[in-house]
Amino acid sequence: MGLTVALDAMGGDFGPQVTVPAAVQALLHSPELKLILFGDISAITTQLTLLNKLNHPRLSIVHCDNVIANETRPSQALRHSKGSSMRMALEAVAVGDADACVSAGNTGALMALSRYVLKQLPGVERPALISEIPNRNANHTWLLDLGANVSCDADTLFQFAVMGSVVAEQTLGTSPRVALLNIGEEAIKGNDLVKRCAEMLAESPDINYIGYIEGHQLYSDKADVIVCDGFVGNVSLKTSEGVANLFIDCIKRNIGRNPFKRLIAKWLFRELFNSLQQLNPDQYNGASLLGLRGIVVKSHGSADTTALENAISQAVYEIKRQIPMKISDRLEEVLLERHY
Amino acid sequence: MGLTVALDAMGGDFGPQVTVPAAVQALLHSPELKLILFGDISAITTQLTLLNKLNHPRLSIVHCDNVIANETRPSQALRHSKGSSMRMALEAVAVGDADACVSAGNTGALMALSRYVLKQLPGVERPALISEIPNRNANHTWLLDLGANVSCDADTLFQFAVMGSVVAEQTLGTSPRVALLNIGEEAIKGNDLVKRCAEMLAESPDINYIGYIEGHQLYSDKADVIVCDGFVGNVSLKTSEGVANLFIDCIKRNIGRNPFKRLIAKWLFRELFNSLQQLNPDQYNGASLLGLRGIVVKSHGSADTTALENAISQAVYEIKRQIPMKISDRLEEVLLERHY
Repeated sequence: MGLTVALDAMGGDFGPQVTVPAAVQALLHSPELKLILFGDISAITTQLTLLNKLNHPRLSIVHCDNVIANETRPSQALRHSKGSSMRMALEAVAVGDADACVSAGNTGALMALSRYVLKQLPGVERPALISEIPNRNANHTWLLDLGANVSCDADTLFQFAVMGSVVAEQTLGTSPRVALLNIGEEAIKGNDLVKRCAEMLAESPDINYIGYIEGHQLYSDKADVIVCDGFVGNVSLKTSEGVANLFIDCIKRNIGRNPFKRLIAKWLFRELFNSLQQLNPDQYNGASLLGLRGIVVKSHGSADTTALENAISQAVYEIKRQIPMKISDRLEEVLLERHY
Repeated sequence: MGLTVALDAMGGDFGPQVTVPAAVQALLHSPELKLILFGDISAITTQLTLLNKLNHPRLSIVHCDNVIANETRPSQALRHSKGSSMRMALEAVAVGDADACVSAGNTGALMALSRYVLKQLPGVERPALISEIPNRNANHTWLLDLGANVSCDADTLFQFAVMGSVVAEQTLGTSPRVALLNIGEEAIKGNDLVKRCAEMLAESPDINYIGYIEGHQLYSDKADVIVCDGFVGNVSLKTSEGVANLFIDCIKRNIGRNPFKRLIAKWLFRELFNSLQQLNPDQYNGASLLGLRGIVVKSHGSADTTALENAISQAVYEIKRQIPMKISDRLEEVLLERHY
């Protein structure tokens, strides 16, 4: 099994300044990994020279003339994407030169191009963006969709549950508890979308569906996989970041530049700071696009070197677990069951 | 102007054990307030006797035989609500015996009964639930809808913006900055609902519309009024509670029962604790149902005495500002402008 990751070296707010050091770190930490960097060769080599890693045996560069800007609409990105670092990285996966693609570029463009270049798995209506979120008991929880689909129907939401379940099962080793995010726990609560999807999940023997959970239970370890549409998931995740930032601000204001207060705060609240770190998007970096014929990991645009390395590790993890194939197999089983 | 509040004394998780002491406190703190308690007379008098306030000159009791249970569906509540404490409190507002109703009971039932008993203001399609949320700079921010409407159209969302703007203006004294909650700041982002509503808001000269904001900006003081549908608003608010609870848990685990650590933590993080308190639903208690021909304030079911007193204060505030009349006037202006 190959372990080659195609990295869009131009993506994100900082481009090669972050992607290249992240690539070098990732190679250092995984001896079996190979990386192909897609982007402006002079910008990439400048960074590699600075790091004294110009001739790394497991790193190659493919020059690309174009970059898809952060403000480009997905439809525009599709039309004018030829030769762009993002598209060429995806094409490397499509033709088998790489086993996964990682990009910190424009999310909408990445989703549109991924669908166009890699295509969906059979039976998948829409790919979904999934990520791990922190958890009160330091266990794993996955939330999807995080914004790939601003409006969904019940079938799509059901597929998200199946795909999320497959991903979680790979880590947990048991059948994950799947819940729908809703505005109440009782069956009567919610909109038509969640109610219809709840019925489908309750009928499906392959999914360990545990019912609705509410926003305040996201981090409570009540469910392993939490399913919602992309609008709700995106708002919910970003709201969490907003609250975490509110606290970080508060702490900073309280401690100020006083080194004594800093020391005491660190002693007293090591665990609190870890939690705040966990809710920092850079830490849970590496949201995966599920449902495609290939592995695509989206990094935060603002990711730093460590965060982008996390996204690369996420891609390696998915390559090793053959996530797309497992999703495809499971969907086939579930859909067969639903129809016969 | 009267200042009479009808209190559903049976609502909430604790009923008269919380509502009666809250009523007594509210009377103590506002010398102009009169309260009518609706509920089981023996349960209410038991509590009043404990507090030695059996014959308070500004407190009266109306006995009700029924209570609407928390798990009752809105449709069921409507059919079987006669003689219930919630309905009788609302009827007191409808006939002019009280100027506002406060209940910590079943939210769905309260909304359904409010619409049935009080009716909507002319031109209002659907009432919305609004509440203040904390803010980085300790200013005011309002979020609506918090769950009254699980699905909305653009006209409804537009009306929420108008109603929220009226409420905020009463406190701020200036034209409030109104934003739509979305999954991106750029005009191309979001679902059809927010895009259509954004167009309507941008065209409206009466609303100081500032564009989209994202979940992480909810508490950032970028907008005074943040508008979204009830599903998104509810998930977002509850997610915030979830994150706050995650931190509170962490702090508790860190400090444990060590009194020395407690003392230092209080000294170091007074402001942080205040923020956590602010995100505690009991503190921002008192969500108002806007768009009705009367004032209805919904308290959290789990509210304690102080929190329920906050909800009563919120009702008093709205009576003094004549919020329903001001909403009605503003809506008439805005709708006239849109149609001519």
